[in-house]
Amino acid sequence: MEKIGVLVTGGTFDKDYDLINGNLGFNQTHVSEMFKRGRCTLDIDIQVLMMMDSLEMTEAHRQYITNNCDNSPYNHLIVTHGTDTMVQTATFIAAANLDKTIVLTGAMRPYKLGSSDGFFNLGSAVAFAQTLPSGVYIVMNGRYFNWENVQKNKANGVFEELGKTISPEL
Amino acid sequence: MEKIGVLVTGGTFDKDYDLINGNLGFNQTHVSEMFKRGRCTLDIDIQVLMMMDSLEMTEAHRQYITNNCDNSPYNHLIVTHGTDTMVQTATFIAAANLDKTIVLTGAMRPYKLGSSDGFFNLGSAVAFAQTLPSGVYIVMNGRYFNWENVQKNKANGVFEELGKTISPEL
Amino acid sequence: MEKIGVLVTGGTFDKDYDLINGNLGFNQTHVSEMFKRGRCTLDIDIQVLMMMDSLEMTEAHRQYITNNCDNSPYNHLIVTHGTDTMVQTATFIAAANLDKTIVLTGAMRPYKLGSSDGFFNLGSAVAFAQTLPSGVYIVMNGRYFNWENVQKNKANGVFEELGKTISPEL
Amino acid sequence: MEKIGVLVTGGTFDKDYDLINGNLGFNQTHVSEMFKRGRCTLDIDIQVLMMMDSLEMTEAHRQYITNNCDNSPYNHLIVTHGTDTMVQTATFIAAANLDKTIVLTGAMRPYKLGSSDGFFNLGSAVAFAQTLPSGVYIVMNGRYFNWENVQKNKANGVFEELGKTISPEL
Repeated sequence: MEKIGVLVTGGTFDKDYDLINGNLGFNQTHVSEMFKRGRCTLDIDIQVLMMMDSLEMTEAHRQYITNNCDNSPYNHLIVTHGTDTMVQTATFIAAANLDKTIVLTGAMRPYKLGSSDGFFNLGSAVAFAQTLPSGVYIVMNGRYFNWENVQKNKANGVFEELGKTISPEL
Repeated sequence: MEKIGVLVTGGTFDKDYDLINGNLGFNQTHVSEMFKRGRCTLDIDIQVLMMMDSLEMTEAHRQYITNNCDNSPYNHLIVTHGTDTMVQTATFIAAANLDKTIVLTGAMRPYKLGSSDGFFNLGSAVAFAQTLPSGVYIVMNGRYFNWENVQKNKANGVFEELGKTISPEL
Repeated sequence: MEKIGVLVTGGTFDKDYDLINGNLGFNQTHVSEMFKRGRCTLDIDIQVLMMMDSLEMTEAHRQYITNNCDNSPYNHLIVTHGTDTMVQTATFIAAANLDKTIVLTGAMRPYKLGSSDGFFNLGSAVAFAQTLPSGVYIVMNGRYFNWENVQKNKANGVFEELGKTISPEL
Repeated sequence: MEKIGVLVTGGTFDKDYDLINGNLGFNQTHVSEMFKRGRCTLDIDIQVLMMMDSLEMTEAHRQYITNNCDNSPYNHLIVTHGTDTMVQTATFIAAANLDKTIVLTGAMRPYKLGSSDGFFNLGSAVAFAQTLPSGVYIVMNGRYFNWENVQKNKANGVFEELGKTISPEL
């Protein structure tokens, strides 16, 4: 059982409600609490790279994430990320041709807001990170997608293969 | 993407509080609701075999579960199950030598009671069911275990490989 | 036991996360669901007047709320309302000198987002609406305040009497 | 604003799931956490008298609760209590003829198990404790009942006045 590295970048996954200003924002990551609640006994190493909305990410941020994937001592990595530009970051990381299994995951609804998909996605991500061969993947909706064959359907908020629009009842 | 069959047998996973008698019991399964909350877009076929505490299962129940695994049209199966005798049922199913990937999962805390590990486990189970080779596995604590090399540690409620007692802070 | 009228105007109380656009907004009121969860057996009549952020309320909205308080067949009323301008609306209603017990309440964190104070506040509001004499009150933080002696402390998000700043650990 | 004393005795209100033995039991009270989540700014003094199922209470326990009501420095008291014998304890306390407002409250579903009525009831209890005249009351279902005119309807789990059976949709 190899150690798994988790690189936290923020995204909806980690957003919470700020009751003073009435907006959604970032405080601290909930990833550690989530692994504990999941009673996860894997050897997990969590590193917070940034806490941001993925719409505000620049190439510099993506380069920083990629460098951290490269420099990580672990070969099985999970990157938590906003869903809006998750495919772009996956594409950026893939260009580095790292010989590692890198899984990007996130949530459509913040973990702290109740009824979130995030906890389920993290459970899937940790499983796919252990079993998929080297490559860059997006894990959402109970599925994994190769980075070069996935898009976010903005109308219904699900990930799908290119050219295969789906309309689930969610 | 192959269809995944889910065979529900009850267990802590599906227990809920009965406010009239003050006890924990079974009403209906929450598995379908959980896949929906997880925004799962896989083709999932859920079948309720029984709703019971795994301590009350007999060989007849295990035979019935095994028969359903065998007769299922799907090659990737998830069996939700109480944790107390999950290893026994896995062993029973394994004896049938089915050429399928069969993943048993459950929860240490009921899904409906808050702070449950069940939703995380289901996310892991659905991922392992897609990626592991044919065989019978237990999926708990973010990990998968081969049926012949796993035990439940009754003191702390985690699954571990035989002879490898672990003491996680949970 | 007299019937209690509930006039819904929106506010943080009823906000929810929209997972397509990633913002907080209004869908439907959760007040009915909350009374059911609270196992409330009072005779409650819920009327949705508007679903809006109280910062966007105009005098016309306040007049509409006041008219509905006046025209309601009930003498014990709860008005759910955003906290930002709750005092202004209470002042507006009070100017109408209605011979009714009118309680304004709300939440600092949306009911649907977990860890909300809203359910507690609604429990308090329904109790104060039954026991306080005619007048206009704000019910928050387990307390009731007369409309002419209350302010929202914007720094920590609690209501307090005029000139009595408090700094609770919340 | 007078200080309010809270005497904790356990009951369903404070039960939680023990994931090692799979039963419901008592660990620590959640009352303090609940007042914090409710953002309550009242001066509250919480005292844990016992943590038990009210079906197991004896006269000695009821005497102990009554003595604590009597000896408390506060005139406004909340007693958290199991619902099964709440009326008996209210009757016992009433016999002491204390010149205080004493409100007994509880929950039909444990606070920690999700979808609980307990948080709503606590909000009501704290309000009624401030506004009702001296006497002993049961606060459940959004209502208050005088100790000598209340019974628990065991079929549907709601409190009602004597001789007035109700059948709410809950």
